[in-house]
Amino acid sequence: MGGPARAIPHTTSRAAVLDVIRAAGTISRVGLVEATGFTGATISTVVRKLIDDGLVRETGRAESTGGKPRVLLQLNQESRYAVGVHIDPVGITYALTDLTGAVVSRLTRAGVGPEDPAEITVRMSRQVDALVAGAGIDRGRVLGVGIVTPTGGLHRQPALRHWADFPVADELGDAVGLPVVPGNDATAAALGEYWSGVVNGSSIFAAVYMGTGVGAGVLVNGIPYHGASGNAGEIGHVCLDVDGPPCWCGGRGCTEAIAGPAAVVAAARADEALARGADLAREGGRTWPSVAAEFTAVVRAARRGEPTARALLERSARHLAVAVRTLANVMDLDLLVLTGSSLAVAGSVYLPAIRRELDRAFFARATHPVEVRLSTSASTAPAIGAATMVLQSQLVPLRPGSRLPGNLSESEAVQG
Amino acid sequence: MGGPARAIPHTTSRAAVLDVIRAAGTISRVGLVEATGFTGATISTVVRKLIDDGLVRETGRAESTGGKPRVLLQLNQESRYAVGVHIDPVGITYALTDLTGAVVSRLTRAGVGPEDPAEITVRMSRQVDALVAGAGIDRGRVLGVGIVTPTGGLHRQPALRHWADFPVADELGDAVGLPVVPGNDATAAALGEYWSGVVNGSSIFAAVYMGTGVGAGVLVNGIPYHGASGNAGEIGHVCLDVDGPPCWCGGRGCTEAIAGPAAVVAAARADEALARGADLAREGGRTWPSVAAEFTAVVRAARRGEPTARALLERSARHLAVAVRTLANVMDLDLLVLTGSSLAVAGSVYLPAIRRELDRAFFARATHPVEVRLSTSASTAPAIGAATMVLQSQLVPLRPGSRLPGNLSESEAVQG
Repeated sequence: MGGPARAIPHTTSRAAVLDVIRAAGTISRVGLVEATGFTGATISTVVRKLIDDGLVRETGRAESTGGKPRVLLQLNQESRYAVGVHIDPVGITYALTDLTGAVVSRLTRAGVGPEDPAEITVRMSRQVDALVAGAGIDRGRVLGVGIVTPTGGLHRQPALRHWADFPVADELGDAVGLPVVPGNDATAAALGEYWSGVVNGSSIFAAVYMGTGVGAGVLVNGIPYHGASGNAGEIGHVCLDVDGPPCWCGGRGCTEAIAGPAAVVAAARADEALARGADLAREGGRTWPSVAAEFTAVVRAARRGEPTARALLERSARHLAVAVRTLANVMDLDLLVLTGSSLAVAGSVYLPAIRRELDRAFFARATHPVEVRLSTSASTAPAIGAATMVLQSQLVPLRPGSRLPGNLSESEAVQG
Repeated sequence: MGGPARAIPHTTSRAAVLDVIRAAGTISRVGLVEATGFTGATISTVVRKLIDDGLVRETGRAESTGGKPRVLLQLNQESRYAVGVHIDPVGITYALTDLTGAVVSRLTRAGVGPEDPAEITVRMSRQVDALVAGAGIDRGRVLGVGIVTPTGGLHRQPALRHWADFPVADELGDAVGLPVVPGNDATAAALGEYWSGVVNGSSIFAAVYMGTGVGAGVLVNGIPYHGASGNAGEIGHVCLDVDGPPCWCGGRGCTEAIAGPAAVVAAARADEALARGADLAREGGRTWPSVAAEFTAVVRAARRGEPTARALLERSARHLAVAVRTLANVMDLDLLVLTGSSLAVAGSVYLPAIRRELDRAFFARATHPVEVRLSTSASTAPAIGAATMVLQSQLVPLRPGSRLPGNLSESEAVQG
């Protein structure tokens, strides 16, 4: 006793009702009572306000058993829009979605590279404007822009050190004149998959994201599990070897240090024949392509039958599989999607390794399996998820003390 | 779109309001609106029903700024009770709590051993009856009995194989004539600490529990994070060495296999001088004391300055610390309590090792620390938590599709 009063996290009746209507497509008020556990009076009040705000509309009647037909509700799809931007060295992807998360329009442009971050931000702002204008949408209906970057920050890559202190979300917000919600690619990818309807029937769903780094985003019934500060899901920094190599995070033997794309590329580069055959850049050379591009070169070498490349990928897959087992055991997952550019190109190696490890050693396997799939929308899910972050945060005001999702470095995060 | 409608997990307005009143001690309806985010109309409806049910009462007025004084609400402490039972080889602990989780009465008896589980269950049922009768409480106000056992099940211990197929929760329910809610010791310990008010200001709180096995219970704003099947928090089965020793769970290099009490005891037994000095039972001998008792003997030897014992404990602490770092990184914790009989006796070795690891390598350490404490109520927290499981489950009916907390084997779990 005596502690401060605390509310249930991430929950208001409004948010719950909106999410249930979205997931159901159409649903009656009685259906909402059943699905949410709220009283009829609460549902009635909340729905009235949502209709007044133009977010929900009545849409005909369903036969009911015995009584009069029930009025069905659905989201007013075109009442609000949001833009998602996924920044990555591989490409910058933009998605414009309506209130249901359905993609109205999208485009992909060159990834970030050696240019000045301020220039890239101006270019991003123009792309956002063009996307909205091109779709013929009233700008007043665009709630904001979600922007997601790799877990740990873009500046973790040698070629992108100049992004270290650049407040990209702030700057983009100023340039585009809309609220900006920052986040990380893994959580956004999970949201993108969920809102695309791929994740039916899962209560604890994770997207394991391997682009440049290794991360994961976890959703509990569709709502991101953020942890205390938006840094949950860090499977790149679970320890697989207490005496392993040091990691930039301060630990030793982390998944990312042992098995991440940068580790695979470094090991490939150390093998002279493979480095030459796969045309990997020399360390300290004039150009230094992105880790993801170099990783793709190693994957291509493996496909050509290069045995060292194959062995390096299999070793990485075996380690990532064990890290995924840890994630599954700690969070008790029931569905997992493998995504991110590196898993998109090397899924045929990683998918079976992860399935095998979970079949063999997932703790609760006697109770339920963990289904593992390769994403079929790896390139767009993070941008769609970024847009849904805006829908969630703008439609449901954050409570005092709530923090924004994502794990950008402080300099990158917009507060407020 | 198109998926089935889903509700927010573990949340009804009634549960949220009850939990906020409990945590606040006393609070006004306006305070409830602020703390929960529900509308005034919802709060008014829910509070009226709680008062009608006798769970909440009005208790005077608070000065308000400018308006008329506000009526304060508090839980009607003596309106309901619950019993918690924590079964362990070290001892069986019983706690009778009121609606606020405050302990009315408690007792500890000998732990489970070689006797017939059915006999022990009859004895437990008599102890529950005696506890309630001794406190002079109307049995009609006792909502039920929470019963918690070690993660993975009692039968994981060599001496307790005869518990493997014994449906203890079912049998106790039949004997005592009250609803029984089963669970695991780690989650119950976390709940016990939380309801005792020790956990102020934490949003993501974990109890790391080392008794015979190694487990963890995680609460998100006071509500257990269960995962898909009540098996979340399995840090005993995160992998610390991909090529490590096989574990009973099917994996390799698990925390429990490398660093758990049974691993420490096995290594101590393998050292002839230490085994003799610490008076450890010989493998295959006639008696086979509990792992926790043998672990305590190793801790005593370390305290006497036995270097091998000390080294074994330090190695175990170093590994457990890395597993805790993994838990902290995956769940993004902000508070951690070390508990369970093994950590209670060896906290002076484990606490500094865990603090050191988190200071050095917790991923979000630039944003917030993870506070680590030794439990001051290791022996009673699981029983108190078991009682609060009953309060939560009986006062807030489970939704269709919800599962009971805990990770007992199926034979031990009461369904319904």
